Amino acid sequence: MDDYSYETAIDVRLRDIDFMGHVNNATYATYLEQAREAYFRDVLDVSLTETNTVLVSLELEYARPIKADDAVTVALRVPELGDSSLPMEYEIRANGERAATARTVQVLAAPDDGGSQPLPSEWRRRIEHRE
Amino acid sequence: MDDYSYETAIDVRLRDIDFMGHVNNATYATYLEQAREAYFRDVLDVSLTETNTVLVSLELEYARPIKADDAVTVALRVPELGDSSLPMEYEIRANGERAATARTVQVLAAPDDGGSQPLPSEWRRRIEHRE
Amino acid sequence: MDDYSYETAIDVRLRDIDFMGHVNNATYATYLEQAREAYFRDVLDVSLTETNTVLVSLELEYARPIKADDAVTVALRVPELGDSSLPMEYEIRANGERAATARTVQVLAAPDDGGSQPLPSEWRRRIEHRE
Amino acid sequence: MDDYSYETAIDVRLRDIDFMGHVNNATYATYLEQAREAYFRDVLDVSLTETNTVLVSLELEYARPIKADDAVTVALRVPELGDSSLPMEYEIRANGERAATARTVQVLAAPDDGGSQPLPSEWRRRIEHRE
Repeated sequence: MDDYSYETAIDVRLRDIDFMGHVNNATYATYLEQAREAYFRDVLDVSLTETNTVLVSLELEYARPIKADDAVTVALRVPELGDSSLPMEYEIRANGERAATARTVQVLAAPDDGGSQPLPSEWRRRIEHRE
Repeated sequence: MDDYSYETAIDVRLRDIDFMGHVNNATYATYLEQAREAYFRDVLDVSLTETNTVLVSLELEYARPIKADDAVTVALRVPELGDSSLPMEYEIRANGERAATARTVQVLAAPDDGGSQPLPSEWRRRIEHRE
Repeated sequence: MDDYSYETAIDVRLRDIDFMGHVNNATYATYLEQAREAYFRDVLDVSLTETNTVLVSLELEYARPIKADDAVTVALRVPELGDSSLPMEYEIRANGERAATARTVQVLAAPDDGGSQPLPSEWRRRIEHRE
Repeated sequence: MDDYSYETAIDVRLRDIDFMGHVNNATYATYLEQAREAYFRDVLDVSLTETNTVLVSLELEYARPIKADDAVTVALRVPELGDSSLPMEYEIRANGERAATARTVQVLAAPDDGGSQPLPSEWRRRIEHRE
């Protein structure tokens, strides 16, 4: 876990493997989404499907390929909280070794227009308690 | 096309739509892969499946959601060529408007170890001619 | 088109290719969904996303593998209309040759419970006119 | 488990949810593939990626929708062994209730042409012992 405050396991599927024989590059983004969902459920006690969070950016650095029979986890931390933005940093691990690092920023969409709204104070409290 | 030297159309599938009712964030990475494949076929006259290129990084900035019936294209350019790295910049467009910008870096894997090898001069010539 | 009354093209994506080097078996079901969507838009002038149709069965017979650079179409016909069920028969074609045959049955879900409701007479008229 | 000799758990992903708000119909076929892979590893001590098995048919009957937070398992049995064909019957379960039934037939492709070859006697022994 190092300095990551959260870690969750991902079941690699055969369908994740692409024409190169490894987990497809886009599927790493799906693993991150799955890790966010696990974090939201475990730490914020809510599913992403019940919130109105929107991804505004995604960065991935691929370190090494992931094979179908690798044991994969995603470690996750929240480096700092913005007023309305929720950044997350990740390490995707295969058999305990770093396969990729990533960073996303989410915002909570405002109910009516396309803008964002402040993160709930309850989320803020739980996230800061976790870190 | 603006200052992008290449543009290709993407067929949005119903399956691309996620629980939020828009194209899933990870699927944007699949659209980029599809644009790379189209570029490789059209400009380099080779399929990605016939090369040994590996993605080393991916950055996506999401500007607005894509809906199932949007007409989507990906515009692409090669900003500068490294000795062994092939960076690409993208604009994903929905009905002609920017839905996301992106940047990837690929390398051509060396045959035996995990390192990279110089890009073929033929690729370099064709890419520079296109830009 | 033979005795199929409708045919639509499918863009094969690199991501459709699986660890065997061919289009994944489950992806054939996605191609069928895409063909249904095209049929609904073209013949019924409505998107599946605007209806409440539910798939009740799916049968696929795989005849030959599909490769990344194959030109794929799905031919489709409605063999007979039930009172509340909409059966469809398909031929998935790669470079004009049969790659799979399929059959699905859809129903239109009733608004409140889990049951089905009769197909709209407008749908019935348009489908019968097409066949 | 009833009269199914094998059962394996599937992690539902948010990405499995489609525009209808439930697990997409094509994704059921991916769940079956994942169950086959688990069965092959557990019972035959080999991964599908190491064999040359090909799916020849797939049948799915959808009984009820699967939601993102459902606990999903796939129960599996081999009803009878052909000389060169491996049929499987499945029940996809959500929170212990039947969500779908399915049946597939696989064959082991012959090394050179597109035909099939007899199933290994070791596979036959292990499968019959399991049932």
